[in-house]
Amino acid sequence: MTGPDPAVAAVRGAVRAALADLPRGSLVLVACSGGADSTALAAGAAFVGPRGGLRVGAVVVDHGLQQGSEEVAERAALTCRELGLGPVDVVRVLVVAAGGPEAAARTARYAALEDSARAHGAAAVLLGHTRDDQAETVLLALARGSGARSLAGMPARRGVLRRPLLDLRRVDTERACAAQGLAVWHDPTNQSGPGAPRRSEVRHRVLPLLEEVLGPGVTEALARTADQLREDADHLDAAAHALLDEARVDEARVDQACGDGAHGGHGGAAGLDPEVLLRAPAALRRRVLRVACLEAGVPAGSLHRVHVLAVEALVVAWRGQGPVALPGGGEARRRCGRLTVTGPARPG
Amino acid sequence: MTGPDPAVAAVRGAVRAALADLPRGSLVLVACSGGADSTALAAGAAFVGPRGGLRVGAVVVDHGLQQGSEEVAERAALTCRELGLGPVDVVRVLVVAAGGPEAAARTARYAALEDSARAHGAAAVLLGHTRDDQAETVLLALARGSGARSLAGMPARRGVLRRPLLDLRRVDTERACAAQGLAVWHDPTNQSGPGAPRRSEVRHRVLPLLEEVLGPGVTEALARTADQLREDADHLDAAAHALLDEARVDEARVDQACGDGAHGGHGGAAGLDPEVLLRAPAALRRRVLRVACLEAGVPAGSLHRVHVLAVEALVVAWRGQGPVALPGGGEARRRCGRLTVTGPARPG
Repeated sequence: MTGPDPAVAAVRGAVRAALADLPRGSLVLVACSGGADSTALAAGAAFVGPRGGLRVGAVVVDHGLQQGSEEVAERAALTCRELGLGPVDVVRVLVVAAGGPEAAARTARYAALEDSARAHGAAAVLLGHTRDDQAETVLLALARGSGARSLAGMPARRGVLRRPLLDLRRVDTERACAAQGLAVWHDPTNQSGPGAPRRSEVRHRVLPLLEEVLGPGVTEALARTADQLREDADHLDAAAHALLDEARVDEARVDQACGDGAHGGHGGAAGLDPEVLLRAPAALRRRVLRVACLEAGVPAGSLHRVHVLAVEALVVAWRGQGPVALPGGGEARRRCGRLTVTGPARPG
Repeated sequence: MTGPDPAVAAVRGAVRAALADLPRGSLVLVACSGGADSTALAAGAAFVGPRGGLRVGAVVVDHGLQQGSEEVAERAALTCRELGLGPVDVVRVLVVAAGGPEAAARTARYAALEDSARAHGAAAVLLGHTRDDQAETVLLALARGSGARSLAGMPARRGVLRRPLLDLRRVDTERACAAQGLAVWHDPTNQSGPGAPRRSEVRHRVLPLLEEVLGPGVTEALARTADQLREDADHLDAAAHALLDEARVDEARVDQACGDGAHGGHGGAAGLDPEVLLRAPAALRRRVLRVACLEAGVPAGSLHRVHVLAVEALVVAWRGQGPVALPGGGEARRRCGRLTVTGPARPG
């Protein structure tokens, strides 16, 4: 008797490793779209789960964005049931298009998956993202120019969500489905051409060209980059929060020290000691100033590096200048030996 | 009377800002290849330098890699002299092809520039790299998957080298040359096609496709990413060196505590306290282990993330396992409560 197909064995091994810490009797839900990635994942979990004493169900999210999405969802649910999974939920979500259709669909999908996990008391929800998805995510983040956290891509775990297949290639999941005779659905929005979503264009045009020009290891390299930058971002964010705590000014002390007594009364004002920030490394100081702006209510989507650098000038290039305007109507100012950030006025 | 062309003004402004800290009478050398970037830079420095009390010369590096490179170099030197620069050196370098022809040419070029700076007592050597070069550098680093330091691209200053044009686009330098009637040389190796160097392929094929798919802001975004990752890498490298100092084991104390007395005698062995490393964040621990391997003599070019993670297992997944083999014949082992890294045997 021969063993399973190598791709099937690779998927099963990855799922086994991702679930090893769960106590027997736990319920695991597979997020299945009917595509090769998540269908291979569902089959892997159907095999591995019961052998590890786990119950395995599935959630199929229907975004209702395409003609026939209901049938696609029902077919995916049927495949999951045929694999022996249960419970199998089909959840229809309403996509509110904030931040573009792809971002809105993603937000709605994750909310639905977390709701299902809560409703069923599931210990984990498994997502079928592969190394290829990770590489695409890194390239899309690069194009935004938004720092280590964005470039860090998708984590293997966050909260209830787990991504067992991040070290496998998409082609491995396709091979695993073929070897097990599993029919998979090809998302027409994953096709290239005019009007195709940007991720699809990255998948079908950018990554193949990068592999041609820079060598076949590009996808691996992008994912490895994401791994390293995620570690960096984890540490830097933690260090920045410690610095923020250190820089926060004792209100009473400052009010006493300040001659004009005119400040205060700003909703959401954060008072920071500029001297503490001046001594800190730029990487941490700029993170702290960004967090201070967000805490004050400046909208994350419109807070760019150029704004953070303008606020930083109140610390590193202080010569008595006036307040710095922030997106949405907020402002940062330095007065009485402290830096305050005020958010946009709220309707009161 | 109208002012100068906007591109000419932009180049001059960038050069002025980059030289503002130099004392009057200093000599500045422009590294000029005869291409648009460095010719625009030479013209900008020829205008700005004397008005700021600076002397401005030039160095033209002839790599001797192409037919006719000598003529190209002489023509570039003539242009510099016609701009009023002096001294103008033409330096022929021998390119030893370690790490590929592009890397070897770069190494030889920087060595020649630093030699010239020393010989003339120059305070700064100006390089014509633009925002486009920075974006290409980031993409090439991404393809290697080698972490924040590589992705951080080229710094605006390092040692005697300065890059005034990093915030300008290549097209700005082309416009500046055209507006001043300066003839520029088009490097045939910058053309696309089979056998063209990878940087040229990135310039002519990858970046245009990225701009088409992801939007025209990609080059800016890549350069902004480099800026942020450079700050991160600066802080992380400094923090890792502090951790390394903290983790170094006092040799005498450990020898006493260890029963077998058999260790020692390894050339370049670094003794580290695994408990100190265990408490540290992964981003710093892995940097420390990488530095320890390099200090022990493991060749940087063959030391990959997979090796660092294998050494790290001696810290974070310790169960009494044996030594970890390192590239070139070195090894890492944990014994007697310390982690030692031994480099490749040196011919003795």
